Amino acid sequence: MLIEVVGLDGDDTLWESEIHFADAQERFEAMAKRYIGAPVNGEAHDAMDRLYDTERRNLEVFGYGVKAFTLSLVETAIEVTDGAITTAEIAELLALGREMLRHPTQLLPDVADVVRALVEAGFRLVLVTKGDLFDQERKFASSGLAEHFERVEIVTTKDAATYRRILGAMQVDPSAFCMVGNSLPSDVLPVIAIGGQAVHIPHELTWALERSAAEHDAPTLTRLAELPDWLATHV
Amino acid sequence: MLIEVVGLDGDDTLWESEIHFADAQERFEAMAKRYIGAPVNGEAHDAMDRLYDTERRNLEVFGYGVKAFTLSLVETAIEVTDGAITTAEIAELLALGREMLRHPTQLLPDVADVVRALVEAGFRLVLVTKGDLFDQERKFASSGLAEHFERVEIVTTKDAATYRRILGAMQVDPSAFCMVGNSLPSDVLPVIAIGGQAVHIPHELTWALERSAAEHDAPTLTRLAELPDWLATHV
Repeated sequence: MLIEVVGLDGDDTLWESEIHFADAQERFEAMAKRYIGAPVNGEAHDAMDRLYDTERRNLEVFGYGVKAFTLSLVETAIEVTDGAITTAEIAELLALGREMLRHPTQLLPDVADVVRALVEAGFRLVLVTKGDLFDQERKFASSGLAEHFERVEIVTTKDAATYRRILGAMQVDPSAFCMVGNSLPSDVLPVIAIGGQAVHIPHELTWALERSAAEHDAPTLTRLAELPDWLATHV
Repeated sequence: MLIEVVGLDGDDTLWESEIHFADAQERFEAMAKRYIGAPVNGEAHDAMDRLYDTERRNLEVFGYGVKAFTLSLVETAIEVTDGAITTAEIAELLALGREMLRHPTQLLPDVADVVRALVEAGFRLVLVTKGDLFDQERKFASSGLAEHFERVEIVTTKDAATYRRILGAMQVDPSAFCMVGNSLPSDVLPVIAIGGQAVHIPHELTWALERSAAEHDAPTLTRLAELPDWLATHV
């Protein structure tokens, strides 16, 4: 198989994302704990569990991204404190969201070198990233990577149909496409399903809703830096 | 000039949008009034003015759309009431946002017929709409119009560069493109600037940030139903 196009995921593959959510969640949890008391029988996780429940429930109305997350934070904070949370604390939660949206793009290790090496090796690159259009455009524009990508696809769902549409637009056969990312359900499984290649590069902080227990035989790399060699020798 | 591609704006051109924001703003204003007292010397508009200020300030961090609007509602409600608003009322504001995001797409009069007539007359159609990716996709998918459009562009900015990119991808010259929409700064002025045609169809509720006092000589139609005849006789 000759790979012609390499697809790269954005959040937690090219740049840090989940770490900022984790920071905000920690501050949310600390805030909620003042109201729901000290941990008893693991109850300390209650606020976080409720937050995940809210996020999961809101996903089909809000979609992905920081604004959706911030709305879920406020909603959950009111719910878990039975309305006792102060408006000053709600303003703090709004500020957390704003901070995340203004945070400079932090590339993961080796990303700039790897992207350059892939282009030099002759691969056509496409960014395939899920989430908020405005925020993802901002992150990509400030990543310094934009000039190396032939195409940018910011999408609401990464399923087989999405990948088929993108490959159709790029006039490339699935067998000549390799997707690279940290999410099994979004970056790996749907690409394998349409006959493409996929490489899984786990990130220690992958979002709960992006994990999967599905069986797959996609190769797993520890770091993006291994990708150029892997592509040169395995496909 | 032979027009080959017709671009159509979404919000307040194909479907109602601003009317839902206006409803939510009314409920926000009524809520805020309980705290800031009866109108004195026009002060009744204070809450609304503050909301516009918040929205304008947040635009470069949040971008457009209902989630951004909801976050601005909560932020402004806390500010104008000096934090006195209750968490139950904040939960109501969150519910307003959720309602807007779940509201069925309401096509404006004649839209389905006009879109069909344009396709039958041989025009290639592209939706060019600004806002939240998730929400715009949902509205378009449930509009019943999708099959008639060759291309869908949900973008963060409608400027000359955006239109140039879209026309490049569709391989059409600006002189063979006509954009139709209710916003002068987004739908009319940038298209004229790149040498395209534009038709302005005002909507009585166009958002303050989408109005413009700029001079232009673009034709203005009262209703979308006039578009097919106009295209047949004027270009």
